[in-house]
Amino acid sequence: MHGYSLDKEALQRRMNRVEGQVRGIARMIDDDRYCIDVLTQIAAVTSALESVALTLLDDHLGHCVTDAIHEGGDTAEAKLKEASGAIRRLVRS
Amino acid sequence: MHGYSLDKEALQRRMNRVEGQVRGIARMIDDDRYCIDVLTQIAAVTSALESVALTLLDDHLGHCVTDAIHEGGDTAEAKLKEASGAIRRLVRS
Amino acid sequence: MHGYSLDKEALQRRMNRVEGQVRGIARMIDDDRYCIDVLTQIAAVTSALESVALTLLDDHLGHCVTDAIHEGGDTAEAKLKEASGAIRRLVRS
Amino acid sequence: MHGYSLDKEALQRRMNRVEGQVRGIARMIDDDRYCIDVLTQIAAVTSALESVALTLLDDHLGHCVTDAIHEGGDTAEAKLKEASGAIRRLVRS
Repeated sequence: MHGYSLDKEALQRRMNRVEGQVRGIARMIDDDRYCIDVLTQIAAVTSALESVALTLLDDHLGHCVTDAIHEGGDTAEAKLKEASGAIRRLVRS
Repeated sequence: MHGYSLDKEALQRRMNRVEGQVRGIARMIDDDRYCIDVLTQIAAVTSALESVALTLLDDHLGHCVTDAIHEGGDTAEAKLKEASGAIRRLVRS
Repeated sequence: MHGYSLDKEALQRRMNRVEGQVRGIARMIDDDRYCIDVLTQIAAVTSALESVALTLLDDHLGHCVTDAIHEGGDTAEAKLKEASGAIRRLVRS
Repeated sequence: MHGYSLDKEALQRRMNRVEGQVRGIARMIDDDRYCIDVLTQIAAVTSALESVALTLLDDHLGHCVTDAIHEGGDTAEAKLKEASGAIRRLVRS
């Protein structure tokens, strides 16, 4: 059971909303809507996804990484290194 | 007819792929998949959306903004200011 | 004469402030200051640099790129492609 | 003693390089150098600072946050919340 199970319903509602927004963008392109309006929608989706990612990361640090740190040794080190990589990808994406 | 009409099919294929990826992420959360794997998928979607946004922006500069600059005066200034705002939102999102 | 010559003094004041902030961060590391405080300062510098970059880009679009578009043909295309690359680097950095 | 003390010399070398780069950018503006070249340098500095921030964050998670998690309770929670805020600012800056 992963940490994010706690917020699972809220996360799913947010992902459903993102899915609706992405479909909306596809439709805007279909309808030849003004580029700037499409770009505004894309920035909104990107922010929403970033926010979901930050929530998942918080839960991950508070559960999986915390458990690994209590276990200590290589397990702790491996989880911290993995979390570091995920943060790096988030910052750079 | 907006600039992005030229690449419309390619853009739609990319948005369809993004929609599939977003549905995949919702399913991963549903299946309690490992947080780090979900985060990796979110970073992939964010990059894909960013790339669509940059394509739209290129087309916008090459068509709408270019036309406005040829028209000159307030039209040019307004379009440049609007494009500047869109770039700002992209950089900050 | 480049576009940014117009705002040159303001830009230089901002770069001087950034230089001071960077020196401040080096000193914080020297003094073993708390990581989170150092990170907050780095985020402030990154935002300040991003803001300078967006100002430069606005001026570039409003001057160099606008002139190239009036000239038309390959010159316009080359300048638009170059600006597109710079925007891409800004969004991704 | 903070976590980053371990890498202190390397961090300082990197901050000195950043300081030199920032001074170089100020000089480029002074010399009316081409906007696109200035933007490229700004993107390089932003990436360098981001990389320093990620190193500091790794050390922070591996030391301060790890210690707090061993201590447990409110201390752990407070440190995790603080780290979360720092990651958020990094992702958004």
